[in-house]
Amino acid sequence: MNLLLLEEADFIAADRVILRDRRLTHMQEVHRSQVGDSLRVGRIGGLMGSAELLRLDTTEVELRVTLDQPPPSKLPLTMVLALPRPKMLRRVFQTVAAMGVPRIILVNSYRVEKSFWQTPFLEPDAIREQLILGLEQARDSVLPEIIIEKRFKPFVEDRLPAITEGTLGLVGHPGNYPPCPRGLNEPVTLAIGPEGGWIPYEIDLLAKAGLQPVQLGERILRVETAVTALLARLF
Amino acid sequence: MNLLLLEEADFIAADRVILRDRRLTHMQEVHRSQVGDSLRVGRIGGLMGSAELLRLDTTEVELRVTLDQPPPSKLPLTMVLALPRPKMLRRVFQTVAAMGVPRIILVNSYRVEKSFWQTPFLEPDAIREQLILGLEQARDSVLPEIIIEKRFKPFVEDRLPAITEGTLGLVGHPGNYPPCPRGLNEPVTLAIGPEGGWIPYEIDLLAKAGLQPVQLGERILRVETAVTALLARLF
Repeated sequence: MNLLLLEEADFIAADRVILRDRRLTHMQEVHRSQVGDSLRVGRIGGLMGSAELLRLDTTEVELRVTLDQPPPSKLPLTMVLALPRPKMLRRVFQTVAAMGVPRIILVNSYRVEKSFWQTPFLEPDAIREQLILGLEQARDSVLPEIIIEKRFKPFVEDRLPAITEGTLGLVGHPGNYPPCPRGLNEPVTLAIGPEGGWIPYEIDLLAKAGLQPVQLGERILRVETAVTALLARLF
Repeated sequence: MNLLLLEEADFIAADRVILRDRRLTHMQEVHRSQVGDSLRVGRIGGLMGSAELLRLDTTEVELRVTLDQPPPSKLPLTMVLALPRPKMLRRVFQTVAAMGVPRIILVNSYRVEKSFWQTPFLEPDAIREQLILGLEQARDSVLPEIIIEKRFKPFVEDRLPAITEGTLGLVGHPGNYPPCPRGLNEPVTLAIGPEGGWIPYEIDLLAKAGLQPVQLGERILRVETAVTALLARLF
């Protein structure tokens, strides 16, 4: 945890918070915080800054916070992601939050197993928990927006063209395609497929919606690694 | 598993192998392979190609293999990595093998917890197991070389300068440094620090050995994510 994130409900006054949950445990056991210590903090959806530890006992900690710094900027990106397997999904949520993706649209794909849609990791609270871990890691206070579009065809045909408009539309896909571009400043809409990749029908529909295939070389990467590699290369 | 890797001991003739271990289970349970199927295979340290499934029962599978393709090229890179925590170490071994790093030197650092050096995941068999998972994922047959240099100072002062010579020497480090370069073709020596980063003394010693700090922006990434992001950006 490189940043302590504060919820609205933590505030007892404009500059005072009390924490009682895993954040208290973390401060006690990992950081071994003491009265007088200064910590980096951020208000979820708001500014970041520092906090002074005023009081600490076994049940709660009280902090005086000063929030005066903007969070780091997000990437100019909408990511369309075929739903990964549950264990991978949790790590991907952390990774995209840490890397500054502002909006992720989870879609179905032919090679996504139907059972993946039943995972409890898609519950709003479970998603939020992983996103917060990513923000705490990277020092950011703004949650990415997660949108679930379970039906691929109506999403790609009816809604994706408006999202892609005015952006560079790309699909990460292994094969004889142009290499993924580097160091862009323009806004991007990027689709990333499931393990095993998109099927040709899906690549065709994505192309009609304005997303052109690009590749990262002949090595087949896990979804989490491919997400990180594509983002690091694009921006 | 996108590639079935074959060990020397699997061969019963120049073009025949018999498998009995987790690879048999994987073929039965995940791929639901049948006699006559064709599979992608690679000989560890050698060529890649295809195999025809000749015989399959509950205890073993026999394949006829044709090995006629070179493995994908490796990155022109030596990676010096501060030993990550054990759980992260396993994933990093998979990631570096998948991404084509040919040589990783694990070093100590002030912020590496001493207990990390006791992990069973540093045993040669445990390292090899994770590397093979990465190679199977990415479709590569050549194991990276893993070197353990537990003492930082003698390694960096006495042996690192010769490794860095004739390469671009870089250290990934957050701070007011030049951005990490993009799309290189030249050989690189890249050092990546522990969670919490290198200490200034270590950065100074690495600089004397020819490694200059570069940064990836203000977000603090987990080691595994930083490794992937740096490689995707450099090459």
